[in-house]
Amino acid sequence: MQRLHTSTIKEHIGEQVKIAGFVQTIRDQGNIKFLLIRDITGVIQVVVTKHHADALATAKTLTHESVVEITGIAKEEKQAPGGFEIEAENIVVLSLADPELPIPITTKGQQGETEQSIRLDWRWIDLRKPEGALTFKVWTELEASLREYWTKNEYVEIHSPKLISTASESGAEVFEVKYFDRKAYLAQSPQFYKQMAMAAGFEKVFEVGPVFRAEPSFTSRHATEFTGYDAEISYIESYADVMEEEEKAIQFAIQRIKDKFGDEIKKIFDRDVIVPSLPFPRLSMKEVKSILAERGISGDKDGDLSPEEERKTGEYVKEKFGHEFIFVTEYPVSVRPFYHMRDEKNATLTKSFDLLWNGLEITTGAQREHRYDVLVKQAKEKGMNTESLHFYLNFFKYGCPPHGGFGMGPNRMIMKLLGVDNVRDAMFVYRGVKRLEP
Amino acid sequence: MQRLHTSTIKEHIGEQVKIAGFVQTIRDQGNIKFLLIRDITGVIQVVVTKHHADALATAKTLTHESVVEITGIAKEEKQAPGGFEIEAENIVVLSLADPELPIPITTKGQQGETEQSIRLDWRWIDLRKPEGALTFKVWTELEASLREYWTKNEYVEIHSPKLISTASESGAEVFEVKYFDRKAYLAQSPQFYKQMAMAAGFEKVFEVGPVFRAEPSFTSRHATEFTGYDAEISYIESYADVMEEEEKAIQFAIQRIKDKFGDEIKKIFDRDVIVPSLPFPRLSMKEVKSILAERGISGDKDGDLSPEEERKTGEYVKEKFGHEFIFVTEYPVSVRPFYHMRDEKNATLTKSFDLLWNGLEITTGAQREHRYDVLVKQAKEKGMNTESLHFYLNFFKYGCPPHGGFGMGPNRMIMKLLGVDNVRDAMFVYRGVKRLEP
Repeated sequence: MQRLHTSTIKEHIGEQVKIAGFVQTIRDQGNIKFLLIRDITGVIQVVVTKHHADALATAKTLTHESVVEITGIAKEEKQAPGGFEIEAENIVVLSLADPELPIPITTKGQQGETEQSIRLDWRWIDLRKPEGALTFKVWTELEASLREYWTKNEYVEIHSPKLISTASESGAEVFEVKYFDRKAYLAQSPQFYKQMAMAAGFEKVFEVGPVFRAEPSFTSRHATEFTGYDAEISYIESYADVMEEEEKAIQFAIQRIKDKFGDEIKKIFDRDVIVPSLPFPRLSMKEVKSILAERGISGDKDGDLSPEEERKTGEYVKEKFGHEFIFVTEYPVSVRPFYHMRDEKNATLTKSFDLLWNGLEITTGAQREHRYDVLVKQAKEKGMNTESLHFYLNFFKYGCPPHGGFGMGPNRMIMKLLGVDNVRDAMFVYRGVKRLEP
Repeated sequence: MQRLHTSTIKEHIGEQVKIAGFVQTIRDQGNIKFLLIRDITGVIQVVVTKHHADALATAKTLTHESVVEITGIAKEEKQAPGGFEIEAENIVVLSLADPELPIPITTKGQQGETEQSIRLDWRWIDLRKPEGALTFKVWTELEASLREYWTKNEYVEIHSPKLISTASESGAEVFEVKYFDRKAYLAQSPQFYKQMAMAAGFEKVFEVGPVFRAEPSFTSRHATEFTGYDAEISYIESYADVMEEEEKAIQFAIQRIKDKFGDEIKKIFDRDVIVPSLPFPRLSMKEVKSILAERGISGDKDGDLSPEEERKTGEYVKEKFGHEFIFVTEYPVSVRPFYHMRDEKNATLTKSFDLLWNGLEITTGAQREHRYDVLVKQAKEKGMNTESLHFYLNFFKYGCPPHGGFGMGPNRMIMKLLGVDNVRDAMFVYRGVKRLEP
């Protein structure tokens, strides 16, 4: 007999059905036992009575979170959660759980919620709560719809190497690998290789893969390894072309997520999915700094936005434009890498942008400098070792179209979509300075 | 004016058009120059005459592989490759290539083809040949269609960590990373984490990501870093359920590739894309060994298949079944990792399989041992350090459904799809013992 998902039982009233899942609760009423069985689609009540003595005997051996396969008759039952139940005829124990669960399976904010670091130790048990699977179903949809946008628009997918010969963008915060008789490093981003694809004439590419940051950072927004979404396009006129591509892709993905998971996200995360209108608002860094100053928030005048400034910018944008997103443009040269193209009219500014979602940076993008001589000059100015960058600089020596692109962080997008306040809960398995397990 | 792709010029005869691309050839006939301009969709001839003196002056400065933007009138021209050309009115040089190209851009087998290791040094230039972009368009389609199969069938996508605390499956051939004040290792596969997802109740998952092998291997089939496609499903009855899922996904993907790129693959790689029929043939390892013995090919009697044996098996399957694929099943315990489930009827065999495509292994799969006690016993028998496997073994202690899955190598699939005989040409950027650049 084919196993059915618990969500489909209501279509089989009066029939014999087979389900399988985790034993979420066991309620004992003498010679009747009520089980709540959980699978990826939800939960269903199973009633076990003395009419099926073997099943009842097996039910008595069960522990919480054991995995069982149950055959029985599907019935309507007003008292049962969801209005249906299965009267068990046979129970097979597929996996008996240790009766001492290391952590309870509690929903966010519920009484008795376990401290995060302990939940992370037992991540796979923590993920059994309703938020767990939904988070990654939404992630799956987010990625699938961005990819659909890209493949429909004839982007080519690349998988660039994560083992590289030289500490890439800045030299700092890079992990060192023992590579046979020499050293290698873990890529901090696929930046150089997306650009290599432009020099190869691929015109439009995307990449999804891990990025590594040896940053001794303990904030709720950072991890030492996380997934990056990256795109790069050739023959742009300006970085505005890049922003347009990005906002269209994001709108497409959020619309899909709302259609498919909007109700469930509302129910489980108490969060409305809002599809952003196009175009997203745009403000230059100078404008943002002056707006913040007017509101009494003073940060580093010529620097980047602090997390506090990002939040306040998000609040302003929501008030002013009724929008969750803002492109902040024209970052000063001082806070951008050497390969960002500079503004001809003001050499202290780059042709670059960040995208903030509800006050959190989720993207950095720019037009890249594709002119060999200018690029070498900018690298030297930033104190880069042009010798070790040789292989990268060569990409621009034998013909390379003008191009630009962006990197986007899905962990942070999941945080904003679901209202999760710590990145550690928005990734499958978190990695930090003190955490390499599970 | 909007830039057009060269492939669409034929729809704009008589109109003023703008194109952009690489200068593939320059042919000089006194005061007339013929350029061949290449973009991602193909090439088009551009004629530059003295009627447009500025354009002609610019054309005279051009070097091979420079990147240009050209505006002009689209015309029919029987003499031109493809039957169309553009009469240039204006030429803008976007990127002037160094006149000394380090390697010529030659097609496979063409006279003057450069030695592979030198081509790999200049990978982005090598990728400008017709095989280059097509290889990765096909890869993009392969991955997109496998993903479509998975997401339609409600698999959840995971991105598991590549930085792990313990040398995973075997302890050998693993890269060591300096991780703050301790050591980490690079994951050889997402195996443990796919299984963690099963213990979390995700039921069906897939992952696409890099895998790392510190193998000092110099064959045409190996790399130290490559992309892995992985899937894992719960509540299977046997590993046959896993094979069925895999063959359906592969058939779906190859059909898509044939529909979309079959003609181009034929033209450029001289290769027919053959959509495999279902089910794929299946033979046990014992059967394969006995067939090979009958044909006078003797390998290790109780061991794995050697590359030679794989090739001969592929030939047999083609002859006997007219099929390019074969599932080889029931591998001996000695050649399989500790976590493969063993056959109840014959404890020397595992419930496992490999998939060969035209005589090359592209997949390893199995039902996994999900019973904690049995798993610990098997790990110990294989001489594993169960202490360092603690975090993994715990996945099976608190309820875990029976499950199985497979890992699949897209590089090798691309080799077989396109008839590429070296994996180094079937990946974007190759990594080997002696190669960390570009």
